[in-house]
Amino acid sequence: MTRLTKKLSKKAGLPPGALVHIGEKRTEKVKVTVWEYDEKSFQQKEIAGLKECLLPKDPPGITWIQVDGVHEVEVLEKLGVCQELHPLVLEDILNTEQRPKVEDYHEYLFIVAKNIFFEEKKGILTAEQISFVLRPGMVLTFQEGEGDFFSPILKRLQHEKSRVRKMGADYLAYSLLDLIVDQYFSVLEKLGERIEELEEDLLKDPIPRTMQRIQTLKREMILMRRWVWPFREVISGLERGDFPLIRESTAVYLRDLYDHIIQIMDTLEVFRDMLSGMVDIYLSSLSNKMNAVMKVLTIIATIFIPLTFISGIYGMNFKNMPELEWSWGYPGVLILMAAIGGFMTYRFWRKKWL
Amino acid sequence: MTRLTKKLSKKAGLPPGALVHIGEKRTEKVKVTVWEYDEKSFQQKEIAGLKECLLPKDPPGITWIQVDGVHEVEVLEKLGVCQELHPLVLEDILNTEQRPKVEDYHEYLFIVAKNIFFEEKKGILTAEQISFVLRPGMVLTFQEGEGDFFSPILKRLQHEKSRVRKMGADYLAYSLLDLIVDQYFSVLEKLGERIEELEEDLLKDPIPRTMQRIQTLKREMILMRRWVWPFREVISGLERGDFPLIRESTAVYLRDLYDHIIQIMDTLEVFRDMLSGMVDIYLSSLSNKMNAVMKVLTIIATIFIPLTFISGIYGMNFKNMPELEWSWGYPGVLILMAAIGGFMTYRFWRKKWL
Amino acid sequence: MTRLTKKLSKKAGLPPGALVHIGEKRTEKVKVTVWEYDEKSFQQKEIAGLKECLLPKDPPGITWIQVDGVHEVEVLEKLGVCQELHPLVLEDILNTEQRPKVEDYHEYLFIVAKNIFFEEKKGILTAEQISFVLRPGMVLTFQEGEGDFFSPILKRLQHEKSRVRKMGADYLAYSLLDLIVDQYFSVLEKLGERIEELEEDLLKDPIPRTMQRIQTLKREMILMRRWVWPFREVISGLERGDFPLIRESTAVYLRDLYDHIIQIMDTLEVFRDMLSGMVDIYLSSLSNKMNAVMKVLTIIATIFIPLTFISGIYGMNFKNMPELEWSWGYPGVLILMAAIGGFMTYRFWRKKWL
Amino acid sequence: MTRLTKKLSKKAGLPPGALVHIGEKRTEKVKVTVWEYDEKSFQQKEIAGLKECLLPKDPPGITWIQVDGVHEVEVLEKLGVCQELHPLVLEDILNTEQRPKVEDYHEYLFIVAKNIFFEEKKGILTAEQISFVLRPGMVLTFQEGEGDFFSPILKRLQHEKSRVRKMGADYLAYSLLDLIVDQYFSVLEKLGERIEELEEDLLKDPIPRTMQRIQTLKREMILMRRWVWPFREVISGLERGDFPLIRESTAVYLRDLYDHIIQIMDTLEVFRDMLSGMVDIYLSSLSNKMNAVMKVLTIIATIFIPLTFISGIYGMNFKNMPELEWSWGYPGVLILMAAIGGFMTYRFWRKKWL
Amino acid sequence: MTRLTKKLSKKAGLPPGALVHIGEKRTEKVKVTVWEYDEKSFQQKEIAGLKECLLPKDPPGITWIQVDGVHEVEVLEKLGVCQELHPLVLEDILNTEQRPKVEDYHEYLFIVAKNIFFEEKKGILTAEQISFVLRPGMVLTFQEGEGDFFSPILKRLQHEKSRVRKMGADYLAYSLLDLIVDQYFSVLEKLGERIEELEEDLLKDPIPRTMQRIQTLKREMILMRRWVWPFREVISGLERGDFPLIRESTAVYLRDLYDHIIQIMDTLEVFRDMLSGMVDIYLSSLSNKMNAVMKVLTIIATIFIPLTFISGIYGMNFKNMPELEWSWGYPGVLILMAAIGGFMTYRFWRKKWL
Repeated sequence: MTRLTKKLSKKAGLPPGALVHIGEKRTEKVKVTVWEYDEKSFQQKEIAGLKECLLPKDPPGITWIQVDGVHEVEVLEKLGVCQELHPLVLEDILNTEQRPKVEDYHEYLFIVAKNIFFEEKKGILTAEQISFVLRPGMVLTFQEGEGDFFSPILKRLQHEKSRVRKMGADYLAYSLLDLIVDQYFSVLEKLGERIEELEEDLLKDPIPRTMQRIQTLKREMILMRRWVWPFREVISGLERGDFPLIRESTAVYLRDLYDHIIQIMDTLEVFRDMLSGMVDIYLSSLSNKMNAVMKVLTIIATIFIPLTFISGIYGMNFKNMPELEWSWGYPGVLILMAAIGGFMTYRFWRKKWL
Repeated sequence: MTRLTKKLSKKAGLPPGALVHIGEKRTEKVKVTVWEYDEKSFQQKEIAGLKECLLPKDPPGITWIQVDGVHEVEVLEKLGVCQELHPLVLEDILNTEQRPKVEDYHEYLFIVAKNIFFEEKKGILTAEQISFVLRPGMVLTFQEGEGDFFSPILKRLQHEKSRVRKMGADYLAYSLLDLIVDQYFSVLEKLGERIEELEEDLLKDPIPRTMQRIQTLKREMILMRRWVWPFREVISGLERGDFPLIRESTAVYLRDLYDHIIQIMDTLEVFRDMLSGMVDIYLSSLSNKMNAVMKVLTIIATIFIPLTFISGIYGMNFKNMPELEWSWGYPGVLILMAAIGGFMTYRFWRKKWL
Repeated sequence: MTRLTKKLSKKAGLPPGALVHIGEKRTEKVKVTVWEYDEKSFQQKEIAGLKECLLPKDPPGITWIQVDGVHEVEVLEKLGVCQELHPLVLEDILNTEQRPKVEDYHEYLFIVAKNIFFEEKKGILTAEQISFVLRPGMVLTFQEGEGDFFSPILKRLQHEKSRVRKMGADYLAYSLLDLIVDQYFSVLEKLGERIEELEEDLLKDPIPRTMQRIQTLKREMILMRRWVWPFREVISGLERGDFPLIRESTAVYLRDLYDHIIQIMDTLEVFRDMLSGMVDIYLSSLSNKMNAVMKVLTIIATIFIPLTFISGIYGMNFKNMPELEWSWGYPGVLILMAAIGGFMTYRFWRKKWL
Repeated sequence: MTRLTKKLSKKAGLPPGALVHIGEKRTEKVKVTVWEYDEKSFQQKEIAGLKECLLPKDPPGITWIQVDGVHEVEVLEKLGVCQELHPLVLEDILNTEQRPKVEDYHEYLFIVAKNIFFEEKKGILTAEQISFVLRPGMVLTFQEGEGDFFSPILKRLQHEKSRVRKMGADYLAYSLLDLIVDQYFSVLEKLGERIEELEEDLLKDPIPRTMQRIQTLKREMILMRRWVWPFREVISGLERGDFPLIRESTAVYLRDLYDHIIQIMDTLEVFRDMLSGMVDIYLSSLSNKMNAVMKVLTIIATIFIPLTFISGIYGMNFKNMPELEWSWGYPGVLILMAAIGGFMTYRFWRKKWL
Repeated sequence: MTRLTKKLSKKAGLPPGALVHIGEKRTEKVKVTVWEYDEKSFQQKEIAGLKECLLPKDPPGITWIQVDGVHEVEVLEKLGVCQELHPLVLEDILNTEQRPKVEDYHEYLFIVAKNIFFEEKKGILTAEQISFVLRPGMVLTFQEGEGDFFSPILKRLQHEKSRVRKMGADYLAYSLLDLIVDQYFSVLEKLGERIEELEEDLLKDPIPRTMQRIQTLKREMILMRRWVWPFREVISGLERGDFPLIRESTAVYLRDLYDHIIQIMDTLEVFRDMLSGMVDIYLSSLSNKMNAVMKVLTIIATIFIPLTFISGIYGMNFKNMPELEWSWGYPGVLILMAAIGGFMTYRFWRKKWL
């Protein structure tokens, strides 16, 4: 629940562009790493102090600045001044409750994306905000937590012959976005496995807890949809060629990425329909259970209540009850009871209640 | 309920532009306050009598006229004549049942917004209408109740270095709208907390009252959606640059505001889905409760009804009942009963009813 | 029900433009009244025979012809020839099952609107069709029933200084449409009151009749929506300036009217959501009632069935039952029974069933 | 059911334009009738052999060729060659599973419409495909079954003064389409009557069969919607003036036709909502019935089980039971029982269960 | 379930264009077959080694290369180099989880389609991806499994006079797509038959298994919709003339194909509505069953519990019970019991419970 409404009111009344970090602190220390590469060279720098301003190098050199942790306002402020970023961009990087979006600031593109994963401890779905600033020859990435999420790209960058070394900053940005979408697929798989398990449990033995699990999964689905849906628009905008910073050679790859997101949305829709169907199955199974319980009660009561009544009659203390004197009275009544009981049982068997 | 259909028929049959106040009277006395500022100076005036007409000052001087209370028709009429406002504008300011909207009257923009809050006494969601008239160098605000709602802006205005002092009347209007949207976030948080509480109660012990609380929350959600949704269109229109009175430097901030509203709408949708899921959980918990009740009844009845029947047999008064004479008859029947009872119990245990 | 499908097949197979009256006869005699006015004069004429053709007067004189009752085909035919109306226009005036619409016949505008009210006797929602023909300097109105529905406008027309006297025929048409929309608000209020009552009854004592009342209200809502929704499009079309007969000075007022209709649609949506929520509450209250009934049965049965069984044991007639001889046997059994009964009661109290 | 998926796979693997009849054979013999008329003359020809090609006559003469029965491929093939129809047009005429559509083949318009009626024997909703080919001065109609469906138009054609004689082939086509839509209204009326009956039965005595009837009606509604919805687009396209073969004088009438279809769609929507409401009423009435049954059981059991227990106590055979000896014991117990029974009954009466 | 989320994460972190096969291996050995034809000649070649590059022949010669099996990356890589296909095209051919789509690579069109069928063993709905590359004078098809799916087209190609021999590569592609859509119709028929069976079972005897079958069918419907819906857009795009490779003479046929797909979507919608209605019927039949069970219990209990109570009274051992001494006591009580039993039975019969 707390995932839905973070303390957004923390900023109420502050002027726009006020730099306040909103969200969890996911890493201890903010770390700034810089990679510079062109077709021939590749080198890494780590800058703790941010003393000097890093400006884009001459083409075709490309600079990638990765910031792990966004909770230290001063670091971002320095970087913002140095890179001439609009105050609203810095505000959005700090406010980790942004929807995915792309904004054109003429000299650079600002992209907000969500990295979705299952939190290790509680196993709940979480999103980490990753912001991109793409300018000619330079990509800045801001990640909430420290981690090696982008390491596959780094490995590719180290190979001199990989495509990413030969292409521009926009292709680097695309590669990073592609990695995020790949992550979506693995989240989707886990969700699919959970649904599968839940479905088996539902068919085997539906318990009240099952309903809660269905609702929890539904909510994860809603959360994921909420993060992925606007991202679809982001990629669609980039692919359509609305932004001159994205070259046509990269747009082809973005079209592919767009296909992937549509596929994810599709699968989410299917999951949703499946969960709705499971609610129906659960509710009907409750009715069926109740039916089964009622049948047991009805069978027992219907067989024994009339018999008990008969035994009650011959338990009466009237003086004048000739049957009681008969020597065949007792066996006769027993046979009568057996006949009634048998007849009732036969009728229940005919009605398929047994 | 009364919040939904105020006495709108009060005006039925009156000509358009007829000035009639519709809504609650939220303050005793209408108060008009004027602030005049430019980059260097800032001063406040309070005008009770509205004797003189306040006209926009020479640029870059900016005048902000705030009217607390809209129920005195004469005050508004005077102001309307003096500021040359269209009769329909005055009518809309008085009729506090307006939807949020923006209208271009060439010389000024007329904006209707809703300030949403929880009423202190009853804790129900209420909206207060705040109307804006934006013209070059001047902003007029009309608020239903008296209050210090805009005080954060006033504080910023008193600081000579704040951005709002340096920018135009459109930026002032934006700042005021931004404050309203910030208020939406805190309402959203409270709604979120209520949903959280309700959910815990629902899982602990679902009682009929829970259903009513779900429906009440659903209705608050519908009300809030109804106020926020058209506001989204207002901000979208302002941001798109449909109105020349909004300068491009301000439009960037409005885009940010638009993002916030989309976020609010998103969260409302998620809340709505959660409440729907809670109805499902509640209904299924009712079925589960019924199942539990029925199981208790069935277990007791199924175990004891056959036993009572057996005791009934040996309570019959037939002369010829040889079992009654046997010295092991009584213990034997007791053992038989224990066996039957034990077998039944075992079966219920196997069926997991126990 | 009959309100939904009037005998439309009455016209099947007839050529288009065939003049057949469809609908109820709401007035005995068709009455034609004419008002002529300009800024200085105002006079009324009543014409029974329609002998002469009334043509628009010289500007700025404005003629308003009101026809009460549309079931006499000959009257309409005469008027149609005289005013040079298209046969399809006359057909639509006669067929009172039209949807609200606006049609441009170059020389005049044809507008169909619905006057909605609660029928006095049965209290059901009914619509009466009011058709308008607007041409330069002239307005024709055709109303199904006789009545003083337009009397507020007449009163205003009698005042020399009222705005409607100073403005054109399009403003007169707007004033009439505005009156119709005002009427919608009062219908909405009544619907709101009914929902309020129903809600109170639902929370106090939900009976099967409640469900029917919910469904009846839902249907009234659907009917109203069906009449108002296309009217929204009519006003939107008029306001957008698609029709040269509507001058811009009047379009401002139509924009105001459009806002009112949107507000009505909004309120209808809210009502609809409330009614859906009430169905949920009703269904869950049924389950709760059932639960309560079952609990009573289960408590009684669970306490007394075991006790009855024990009394049955000591009612058996075995010779060899030593307990029967004990002098503390009877009090002992009574105490045992009280203990069992007390324990059961305690458990039900713990389960909060009591 | 078979109405939904006719054997469409019959054509699987055949090349496009392959002429195969799909659908029921609704008439024994294919019959071709020709009418030729202009403002002055009108004559009918029946052609069995199709030996000569019928070409459009000189203007203003108009030829109408009506084909009853589309199951004889050879007849259509001949006509197709002679009239120079595209193979796909012939294929669509033969395949009676087409959706309503309009296609422009430059020299002629091809229109597919559905004639909807209740099959006389089984009373189920059926559609018969009627295809139109409209070319200058000529209309071809292809109807599945033989019948006098178009006879009202023929009657009008025989009157020299009727409008249809004076206007072109497009007006003839419009008149035929208008007849089809008129037929829709009478189907709608019958559906309305069925819903009305069903509703009465539902309120009187809801039985399981009622649910099936609701579902059957729902399906008829879906079927009808499926046939009418695309027809709406057809008429809309014709009316908008997308096709030069439709003259503007006819477009006015098509606009009227379009209004009718919108009205039909509206009514279908209302019917649908009503049926949904009826499902709710049915389900809640089931719960109410169950409640009533349970109350009876609970009242009887709650009154008599405790009483039976008391009688059981005094049926025990303990030696030492002093009450048994008292002369007021028996009457006292009877009075006690009556008191308990009376108290229980009073409580049920208080709870309004009686 | 596994049909929904294939191991898409297999590719996570790989660079775009990386060739990895995703999906089941449906055939043992990849087989490449080539057909070359023009209006006069037709010949087949089978190429195992792919040693030489097959280039489009001079017009009007047309080459069709069919690849059965896509799991051997090397074969596709060779073909890709030789035919100058973009790496993303090859990736999409290998990844059998693509949505149907069409992409324009200027020199060729890339089309992804789904062949839908019921798997023979398990009877579940499966889709096989068929990819098309269409370039002037050449069509490449990539099918997951080996099979004779396209054999009807081959038969037509062998006939010298068939239309497909006379028209271009785009018509060949259309014919293949048409075959796929024909296959959809036969799947639809099977689904329709299953629904029909299910409906009969539902009305005869609704068991818990029925609910699962409904849900399974719903899911098949969702899956099919998911495959057909984007295909609709593909055909729509091809038909609209967005792609110069599709000539207008072929576009007419694609319009026909588009109609077929719309028809399929329509039928799927109807099926869906039917299944929803079946869930309602099933749930209400559960309630009805419960009602029937409860009635049996209530009837038995209500008749016999009071009677048992009476017999209990006269089973009491009070000394002073004068009725016991009466000679008509026993028969009198029996008659009383019969009277009570008869009265109860009569009341149940009146309530129509019997």
